[in-house]
Amino acid sequence: MDIKKYKKESEYSYTLGAFPTIELLKTRHEKVLEVIVHSGFTDMETIKTLCGTNIPVSVNDKLIAKLSDKENCFVIGVFKKYDDELRSNKPHIVLVNPGNMGNLGTIMRSAVGFGIKDMAIITPGADPFNPKTIRSSMGAAFRLNIKCFDSFDEYVSAYPEYEKFLFMLRAKETLSDKTASKNERYSLIFGNEATGLPDDYDRYGRSVIIPETDEVDSLNITIAAGIAMFILNRPYFTK
Amino acid sequence: MDIKKYKKESEYSYTLGAFPTIELLKTRHEKVLEVIVHSGFTDMETIKTLCGTNIPVSVNDKLIAKLSDKENCFVIGVFKKYDDELRSNKPHIVLVNPGNMGNLGTIMRSAVGFGIKDMAIITPGADPFNPKTIRSSMGAAFRLNIKCFDSFDEYVSAYPEYEKFLFMLRAKETLSDKTASKNERYSLIFGNEATGLPDDYDRYGRSVIIPETDEVDSLNITIAAGIAMFILNRPYFTK
Repeated sequence: MDIKKYKKESEYSYTLGAFPTIELLKTRHEKVLEVIVHSGFTDMETIKTLCGTNIPVSVNDKLIAKLSDKENCFVIGVFKKYDDELRSNKPHIVLVNPGNMGNLGTIMRSAVGFGIKDMAIITPGADPFNPKTIRSSMGAAFRLNIKCFDSFDEYVSAYPEYEKFLFMLRAKETLSDKTASKNERYSLIFGNEATGLPDDYDRYGRSVIIPETDEVDSLNITIAAGIAMFILNRPYFTK
Repeated sequence: MDIKKYKKESEYSYTLGAFPTIELLKTRHEKVLEVIVHSGFTDMETIKTLCGTNIPVSVNDKLIAKLSDKENCFVIGVFKKYDDELRSNKPHIVLVNPGNMGNLGTIMRSAVGFGIKDMAIITPGADPFNPKTIRSSMGAAFRLNIKCFDSFDEYVSAYPEYEKFLFMLRAKETLSDKTASKNERYSLIFGNEATGLPDDYDRYGRSVIIPETDEVDSLNITIAAGIAMFILNRPYFTK
């Protein structure tokens, strides 16, 4: 297989590094096309065991250098991109036009850590399959059901019964331990890093702000999303 | 003044971008040496008002291009580096050998947002004055008292009466709303991104883990620090 540098239109993508590759092999085994290893890699045994008899493993230092920008990448897993559906009885995290792949990956990692495993992305937005996103998620991307929607209204129409929490600076409620959903059918919704959610989005549900001092303009989106998921999903994932 | 690219040994550093420069001018006015503006910058009025009569402002596109890697930087503030002392009656965040300037800046921004304004950095570690750290903090760096210590023991000796919360994966306590300090004299302590705190650091105080599912290895350090500061300082900063 002739593997090229990743583009958004590519039918396949890849993991950079041993940790996300191991996550890929454990959680999306049937999507893996092949694994490429650097000759300096020391834990070939783990990779070969996870690949089994059906996934080819090859040593190719030149290809590793071509695909990875970082020096310290020793393993790359190539996988076919896939489509997921979101479950309709579990919480969703919804990102409206996320702008940054590092942030997107970090939010994926927190989501899985706090038991939220369904993510909607409203396009245009950062590509969930880009190797940079996958790397930043530490492979948590593969444990999420991710679905892209062309507009926020399309998402809302698909899940009308979900209780919607819209995180915005001009909000009616302040996040507290009482900001709970009646059940697990709820959505935590965040806007773009630079612009946030449009002011009139409060019509879709409950507008919420995370309490903060007036000495900062806003929180980093990954921090806001992490705290919101922790506080609101804690009753479910810690039980 | 002949301004060179930043080095750790430099006596001055600079802000990249209008937002952190405005924060610098508002909060550390007496440390500002000069402000450099791109000819395409549209809000000269704000900068000139904040600079007053004693801080020189000049237009210099070439210097902006030299100092900033990003295209969209229109303002740079040059300031003299300074030493702070930590207050001994307010909470501290303590970072042991932080490895990444982006993470350090993000933690600074969350800290100010959640009312924690004293930060200890145990060296070696990411440079709090590096323009990348300052940019990532959105200028919150200037609102913190930051002090570097050569070792964790040096910090502990300076604040023996502080209640110490050590965030580690092998911890005795799980963070909850009951994980409170008796008063504001407490320290939230985090290790390096890759290695965490050494296992035997639980001897210094209370070892705490943030609850998470077993589907992730750990949380991103900026998320862990954000949640810990939010939960533990909420009784103080929201009152």
